[in-house]
Amino acid sequence: MEIVSSNRSHGGVQGVYRHASAATGTEMTFSVFVPDHAEGAKLPVVWYLSGLTCTHANVTEKGEFRAACAEHGLIFVAPDTSPRGEGVADDAEGAYYFGLGAGFYVNATEAPFAQHYQMRRYIEEELPALIGAEFPADMARQSIMGHSMGGHGALTIGLRNADRFRAISAFSPIVSPLNCPWGEKALTGYIGADKAAWRDYDACALIEDGARVPDILVDQGTADNFLEGQLKPDLLEAACADAGQSLTLRMQEGYDHSYYFISTFMAEHLAWHKARLG
Amino acid sequence: MEIVSSNRSHGGVQGVYRHASAATGTEMTFSVFVPDHAEGAKLPVVWYLSGLTCTHANVTEKGEFRAACAEHGLIFVAPDTSPRGEGVADDAEGAYYFGLGAGFYVNATEAPFAQHYQMRRYIEEELPALIGAEFPADMARQSIMGHSMGGHGALTIGLRNADRFRAISAFSPIVSPLNCPWGEKALTGYIGADKAAWRDYDACALIEDGARVPDILVDQGTADNFLEGQLKPDLLEAACADAGQSLTLRMQEGYDHSYYFISTFMAEHLAWHKARLG
Repeated sequence: MEIVSSNRSHGGVQGVYRHASAATGTEMTFSVFVPDHAEGAKLPVVWYLSGLTCTHANVTEKGEFRAACAEHGLIFVAPDTSPRGEGVADDAEGAYYFGLGAGFYVNATEAPFAQHYQMRRYIEEELPALIGAEFPADMARQSIMGHSMGGHGALTIGLRNADRFRAISAFSPIVSPLNCPWGEKALTGYIGADKAAWRDYDACALIEDGARVPDILVDQGTADNFLEGQLKPDLLEAACADAGQSLTLRMQEGYDHSYYFISTFMAEHLAWHKARLG
Repeated sequence: MEIVSSNRSHGGVQGVYRHASAATGTEMTFSVFVPDHAEGAKLPVVWYLSGLTCTHANVTEKGEFRAACAEHGLIFVAPDTSPRGEGVADDAEGAYYFGLGAGFYVNATEAPFAQHYQMRRYIEEELPALIGAEFPADMARQSIMGHSMGGHGALTIGLRNADRFRAISAFSPIVSPLNCPWGEKALTGYIGADKAAWRDYDACALIEDGARVPDILVDQGTADNFLEGQLKPDLLEAACADAGQSLTLRMQEGYDHSYYFISTFMAEHLAWHKARLG
């Protein structure tokens, strides 16, 4: 693991790191904030999965999470959203919602994407092992959050691994790739036309199929341009209601899809996570 | 005045605006955060002047000022650091500390810079008139802060206009262009070789020459690469001590010159300003 940069911030250290990933077969870059802590202490870990077009850098620069992480003693991990580099396939049509920057947190099975787009395995297995080995992280206390495509990632990874993540929250998540144009194109490209295989990557389908977690928190802006066409939080609301899955869905008046929205509610999400991480 | 963008954030509105400046003879872009406020209310205004290479965008995205401005009811104005556009002169040698992005908050008198580099007039006269006219701003309650070259701008503009700014603070400011290579090149280029003319643009010289304000707050990181060669806060400390000018200089252990540092102490600065703005 190589240190790309390291800056003192809010009493802790904001680092950016690079490593050779076996899961993706590429170099991967991620950021970690470690707050000030007692020598030898292990801190709970909050995973933050980013949205379409993003790298680790967007939330690291604009997310306004460090003050709250310092207050609550939380490690904050922000991975990239796809493999990158020479030889990594991209969408032939250049869509921003498929290919580079748009890994959708799946293990791709379709050529040519299967070779590198193994983001599920990367986030669920490889990166946690590295975080546990290299940082003062208490891997028995993890939670997960994300934005948009990363909200989809947080919900699906959290629902599939309820034993590992004590809290799941999301900002303006894609709640059902089965039911939106972004998901339609990306999942067809990554895992093929058989929609039965998609259900593992669809928060609503996972809940329909029996996945349960103690609680889910979702903030969604009412002025979000993607609200009706792509995000459709009503589908998650219905799936949770039908299944008896607890959900706190907050429609935030006048907020859009940007980090101006995310940063506004970031501290509340982290306090909510902290309450569940102990 | 044209609205470039407008986003709801922390209960208020983060806007970016563009207008034709008479002072610089160019279009100028700036950002303003207006927190939620009662209909008809006028709010105090904090000016934030940015450093070398920056535009309004750096602090707007990375400054973490909105939560504190919302809490304290402060309007936050972030101007650009130089004129820009076709026909605007730049450093022939391409230095990042002179020309575009490096206006040093002076009124240039030397060709070819005098034509557009009128940042003092822009910040002291033209932009305040626009802010007072277009925003719910109480122009009787203003304060000023800045970073690096913008800390120099905040100190010099604040010291020259003690009747207007109730508080001055800075992060890692250039305290004396007369005594650092950045200032040497820039002020020679903008206002010529006669150093008597520089004293109006040098915080230490202004204090030596009699300028006084109630208090100055400065935060400076000890791991700042520019500390010894350019910033030299000891010169400001000495000038203030000799003159009986109140100064709170805080050396912040391990912090560098970046927004990871600025964002850490931004909320404290804004609380300090609020206490003086009433």
